[in-house]
Amino acid sequence: MSASSGLPPTLVGTGDLFQLLRDGTPRTRGELAQLSSLARSTITARVEAMLSSGLLEPVGEAASTGGRPPTRFALNRRDRVVLAIDLGASHASVAVSDLSGQVLDERTVVSDIADGPVVVLDRAAAIGVELLAGLGRLPADVAGVGIGVPGPVEHAKGRPANPPIMPGWHDFDVPEHFGRHFSGPILVDNDVNLMALGEYVTSWHSTPHLLLVKVATGIGAGIVTDGRLLRGALGSAGDLGHVQVAGAPADVVCRCGNTGCLEAVAAGPAIAAKLRAKGLDVESSQQIVDAVSAGDIAALQAVREAGRDLGSVLATCVNLLNPSVIVIGGKLSEAGEYLLAGVREVVYQRSLPLATHNLRIVGTSAGSRGAILGASAMVIDAVLAPGAVDEYVAARIA
Amino acid sequence: MSASSGLPPTLVGTGDLFQLLRDGTPRTRGELAQLSSLARSTITARVEAMLSSGLLEPVGEAASTGGRPPTRFALNRRDRVVLAIDLGASHASVAVSDLSGQVLDERTVVSDIADGPVVVLDRAAAIGVELLAGLGRLPADVAGVGIGVPGPVEHAKGRPANPPIMPGWHDFDVPEHFGRHFSGPILVDNDVNLMALGEYVTSWHSTPHLLLVKVATGIGAGIVTDGRLLRGALGSAGDLGHVQVAGAPADVVCRCGNTGCLEAVAAGPAIAAKLRAKGLDVESSQQIVDAVSAGDIAALQAVREAGRDLGSVLATCVNLLNPSVIVIGGKLSEAGEYLLAGVREVVYQRSLPLATHNLRIVGTSAGSRGAILGASAMVIDAVLAPGAVDEYVAARIA
Repeated sequence: MSASSGLPPTLVGTGDLFQLLRDGTPRTRGELAQLSSLARSTITARVEAMLSSGLLEPVGEAASTGGRPPTRFALNRRDRVVLAIDLGASHASVAVSDLSGQVLDERTVVSDIADGPVVVLDRAAAIGVELLAGLGRLPADVAGVGIGVPGPVEHAKGRPANPPIMPGWHDFDVPEHFGRHFSGPILVDNDVNLMALGEYVTSWHSTPHLLLVKVATGIGAGIVTDGRLLRGALGSAGDLGHVQVAGAPADVVCRCGNTGCLEAVAAGPAIAAKLRAKGLDVESSQQIVDAVSAGDIAALQAVREAGRDLGSVLATCVNLLNPSVIVIGGKLSEAGEYLLAGVREVVYQRSLPLATHNLRIVGTSAGSRGAILGASAMVIDAVLAPGAVDEYVAARIA
Repeated sequence: MSASSGLPPTLVGTGDLFQLLRDGTPRTRGELAQLSSLARSTITARVEAMLSSGLLEPVGEAASTGGRPPTRFALNRRDRVVLAIDLGASHASVAVSDLSGQVLDERTVVSDIADGPVVVLDRAAAIGVELLAGLGRLPADVAGVGIGVPGPVEHAKGRPANPPIMPGWHDFDVPEHFGRHFSGPILVDNDVNLMALGEYVTSWHSTPHLLLVKVATGIGAGIVTDGRLLRGALGSAGDLGHVQVAGAPADVVCRCGNTGCLEAVAAGPAIAAKLRAKGLDVESSQQIVDAVSAGDIAALQAVREAGRDLGSVLATCVNLLNPSVIVIGGKLSEAGEYLLAGVREVVYQRSLPLATHNLRIVGTSAGSRGAILGASAMVIDAVLAPGAVDEYVAARIA
């Protein structure tokens, strides 16, 4: 039940009714009455309020059963827009989407996360304002803002929590700062969580148990269970990079100070170091991908071996979480089937038969846009929830 | 929004209103109106319907602000009862609880799960009927039945899925069979999941991210995130027993056919085998606990070492799930601090600082009754949900 606000008693529950319309399927008042068991008079009043607020729009007439054909209504996805921001170590992507998650415009610029929160956030906000202007929209049209950052976040507060590669960001109140530029909720999460959500909403909506692993300079995972992000007590769930790999050499020291961590054996820098020891001139993840594309045997072997190490940790994840799909993303996933083959080999060997019965292990489909799409989805989930819709409608028709 | 049933339109949403009363706190009509923003006339109609159905009862008067003091209402927890059943490898426990989860009577008998589903379920049903009769209740008073079994379960269908120690149970339709004896939903889950839920509802309600590990003849876990059981795609989530332990000797073959599994190094049979190799006469988990209680040094060492192996796997779980509490249960947890100390040693060494910031690692408080309490909680969650309450009230006042 939504704790409402200024709505007249007869309109409380408008947000509940709206849930039957938020997927974009047009419906008549009669269909809404049937689906909700609400009285026709209640339906009429709530639909009227949502039309007045701009959140619903009429979308043509249904086939008539005699008499005047009934009108269909659907979510007016252009009623407001969402600002989605993906901050990486060295880039900032900003997008404007409609209320269905469709991206209307986007821009990516070089941006060093180490410039600190004020500089980086103001830079992203300025791009957002420009994009909005280009679309003929105002900052007041923004329903909410979703921001992904490359480090752990205390999601409930919107504050990064000891992020290793984000100097100056620890405990910074992102919503408070960004709220100076835009209205609506300002939600912050780890970029890998948002990649998982983005992949889920765009490609895997019918399989609500998904694990997305990002393999690049670091390794992390985002977990969707029962269609919701699993964040854990402090928002650090999915942090796979420092899990100990069974069978890893005990002398491999990780940057975290422990030995045998997954990142220390299977992330980009570890693979590059192995290849340099074999005489290749490789530094970045992109160069590893290029070497694999060029068919370099040492690179193929190293990437496949990294896949096996990743698979050894993912086998544990499979036994623990029983997902129906594992999506491998991040720069190194562009090495394609060689990484996936290594992962599959060990996951199918080390996981329980029941847990791998229907398990699929695939590459990403959203690619580098996953975090942007996830940031938009996170905001839409929040602003189209029953209570938020009640409040929005109440404010608009007041 | 609950998809209702035969209720008059004005009463749809009764189940929603009931959610404000299900915690047992008595409230007046005025308090309900304030909490729900519903009109007083709507509150009055819905409260009246719930009183007629028996689900609510008046519980004394509130302090008056002048005039006739208003009546308070609360869940009538004796309106119906719940049957909770915990089937182990060699025992069957049956309990009757009220709608608050309070156990009214219970009985445990020797029962071999290998007797097969018909014999074991009919045995449990017969005990249930006896317990009900002793309490002066009829089978028709049963709101629902929760059943825990010692193996994987496809929860949505209520069917065990290839359970290794339950011959004859694979794909058996437990709800269909048990529905011959009792009314209401018949929900089936893995016993370790129910232990996790039982521990959560009785001791950790304010910390919604909990991992319960059962250590006995086998090793398994139940996961609560955001206050809900995480079951995964096919219900096999939490299956830790066959995760590979980093650093485990490669020659330890597990009963599953893999090597280095957690069960093969840290469960009761593995510890007992180590102790027999040192000349102790130990077979069962109980005998290991007895040897620890007697202060046998070899037993202390072996249990602590098992704790370390368990800790190595749990460190991965902590990074992956970020729980706020890990509860160690099962027969071997009765070895007390020696097992816990080994677990803590490795978890705190191998987990990320953020993930262990507020982490507690404790013994079970519900003990062997966890599964019974969880089975009852699972049913109460289902039968007091908004839609179920709508249907119940509609049927009673029809």
